[in-house]
Amino acid sequence: MELLVTYDVATTTPEGAQRLRQVAKLCEGYGMRVQKSVFEVVCSDADWVRLNNAFQRIIDDEDDSIRVYRMDRGSFKSVTILGRARRLPHDDALVL
Amino acid sequence: MELLVTYDVATTTPEGAQRLRQVAKLCEGYGMRVQKSVFEVVCSDADWVRLNNAFQRIIDDEDDSIRVYRMDRGSFKSVTILGRARRLPHDDALVL
Repeated sequence: MELLVTYDVATTTPEGAQRLRQVAKLCEGYGMRVQKSVFEVVCSDADWVRLNNAFQRIIDDEDDSIRVYRMDRGSFKSVTILGRARRLPHDDALVL
Repeated sequence: MELLVTYDVATTTPEGAQRLRQVAKLCEGYGMRVQKSVFEVVCSDADWVRLNNAFQRIIDDEDDSIRVYRMDRGSFKSVTILGRARRLPHDDALVL
């Protein structure tokens, strides 16, 4: 499945800044960061359950917000990018 | 059409902060802000052309980044929200 994860984590406190780092690190384990607070994730249903559970353990329900959009397969390839891009294909071979 | 607009605008300079305000104000004219830098837009093809042109006039191609994902109709209703929500339906009647 393809998921677009966007998050707002309140960083006005040291605890908030730490939560932001935790959310970012977690997302980096499942997807590709395309903007500061936006990740494109390609994962299995089981991964999504794990990711969802981990988000819930980290975030503060009052201050933070995470939104997860289910995307059609191929949506990431057809995104319109204006300005600076930070993008690598998810499923193409990595050439070293 | 339904579009998810996410943006990173560099705010380390006064010009950057101004661009951020301009992008936010522009998006507010076409959609609903659901996170600091995320808008859900429901618009016509012609609106999308106008929005795209306006983005290109505002942003700095080196420093800023805007991503526009085309969504399936109904995607906004099926988003998974964790933590704080900031959401109103797009196409339901507004009760005053």
